[in-house]
Amino acid sequence: MSKLTRFGVSVDSVLLEKFDDLIGRSGYRNRSEAFRDLIRDRLVAEEWTDSDKETVGILGLVYSHEARDLTETLNAIQHEYVDMIISATHIHLDAHNCLEVIIMRGKSGNIQKVSDRLLSTRNVKHGRLLTTTTGAGLD
Amino acid sequence: MSKLTRFGVSVDSVLLEKFDDLIGRSGYRNRSEAFRDLIRDRLVAEEWTDSDKETVGILGLVYSHEARDLTETLNAIQHEYVDMIISATHIHLDAHNCLEVIIMRGKSGNIQKVSDRLLSTRNVKHGRLLTTTTGAGLD
Amino acid sequence: MSKLTRFGVSVDSVLLEKFDDLIGRSGYRNRSEAFRDLIRDRLVAEEWTDSDKETVGILGLVYSHEARDLTETLNAIQHEYVDMIISATHIHLDAHNCLEVIIMRGKSGNIQKVSDRLLSTRNVKHGRLLTTTTGAGLD
Amino acid sequence: MSKLTRFGVSVDSVLLEKFDDLIGRSGYRNRSEAFRDLIRDRLVAEEWTDSDKETVGILGLVYSHEARDLTETLNAIQHEYVDMIISATHIHLDAHNCLEVIIMRGKSGNIQKVSDRLLSTRNVKHGRLLTTTTGAGLD
Repeated sequence: MSKLTRFGVSVDSVLLEKFDDLIGRSGYRNRSEAFRDLIRDRLVAEEWTDSDKETVGILGLVYSHEARDLTETLNAIQHEYVDMIISATHIHLDAHNCLEVIIMRGKSGNIQKVSDRLLSTRNVKHGRLLTTTTGAGLD
Repeated sequence: MSKLTRFGVSVDSVLLEKFDDLIGRSGYRNRSEAFRDLIRDRLVAEEWTDSDKETVGILGLVYSHEARDLTETLNAIQHEYVDMIISATHIHLDAHNCLEVIIMRGKSGNIQKVSDRLLSTRNVKHGRLLTTTTGAGLD
Repeated sequence: MSKLTRFGVSVDSVLLEKFDDLIGRSGYRNRSEAFRDLIRDRLVAEEWTDSDKETVGILGLVYSHEARDLTETLNAIQHEYVDMIISATHIHLDAHNCLEVIIMRGKSGNIQKVSDRLLSTRNVKHGRLLTTTTGAGLD
Repeated sequence: MSKLTRFGVSVDSVLLEKFDDLIGRSGYRNRSEAFRDLIRDRLVAEEWTDSDKETVGILGLVYSHEARDLTETLNAIQHEYVDMIISATHIHLDAHNCLEVIIMRGKSGNIQKVSDRLLSTRNVKHGRLLTTTTGAGLD
């Protein structure tokens, strides 16, 4: 964390009251914290519009382990992108269903591409990509 | 607009620089304005999680006017909810396609219900609901 | 509308039952209609990832008409992009608040740019852009 | 996986061509697979509108490990909800930044609540919740 800058902002008092209610319910300790989170979330959204930006994505896949060859196929695709994939956690949801959570780091365009390939694999039931950040410069 | 409250927030200087870049590119004149917009957008999102809250929605529908009875059907549905529908603008996109933009005001749950009925009407090609606000208390 | 192609799809019977429930609640008359809407919504989302694609956007802006010069500023910005703006509907929400719904047609990147300028204008309380389509090729 | 039902759907040939292009680029092997994914994604979105539905969420948190007491605070919150939290994976992003990926299972309302508490913790830089499913009934 580098040095803090303090500055003033002006907000209509009725709007500020509603914001204070919201941050109270969410659990923020003060306005600066809530404000910083709003800024960072907007900046991360922007990072993902630039396909060359280095960033972090988390892919969640739900599938049935009974589907023939599925685990091998998912594994094989991941191995093609071994430099981008940091880790994969496997959860046994029930007798049939598995959840695989794959953490990736790389250019946002490439993370998108790997995700599309894994999501479109036969017998993957559900999947979504969570777009986050390396955290660099977001203190 | 009621009275303004001024207060201080602390933000790390690197993060603040990125925020200043972002608001420069977006066209905001100062940080307070950008900050207020971030707050309001969060508050409007919250309004829409409460199905009893009075709010404003804009439905865009794209369809072919050649589809038999479609205009009549869309019209008939709108008339059932005449108290909620403020206006409807019709645009001729090309020889075949129409855009209808319906502005509604009412409980968010009811706006959602009318939208679902209109969106699921046969031969409507595309439609989405934009969720906004009456503006009350958001100065 | 051009010629229809009919083809078979295979869906697990439990999943199909849930889908039938969903389309029943939404108001679709049959599976083909619901299926076509799912496809089109995905295709429209894709159109908006290409900034050069001609498309249609609907911008909703909520603001207080009491804000000095705001109406003039919003108008002046719109006039710079007169070729893209099809229509603007103005609704008086209450004694203070206005809703302006601006329908635009053009390259998605340009629609985004005009929207950013209008949204970041001082005293605009809330605004969002609804991304839809010209409907061409989406029969 | 239970028994498959096969049925016919009718789609305009131009629309179908665009859909075939899209599924080709995404990597689907056939229309049925792409169709099933579109259905399931819609059903999962619906699951999350019911706060009592048992489901699965993946929370990604980016923070600096140098922030005093942060790791302990995040840990303490997780321990209050030990029955809901399946696993947490910790990634060292660089000398300063950590990524923590927390997999949760429980009622969607409760997953949302834990996520809000973790996201609003002081010094968490970025965080988002990925909403997925237990996979039950989505074959």
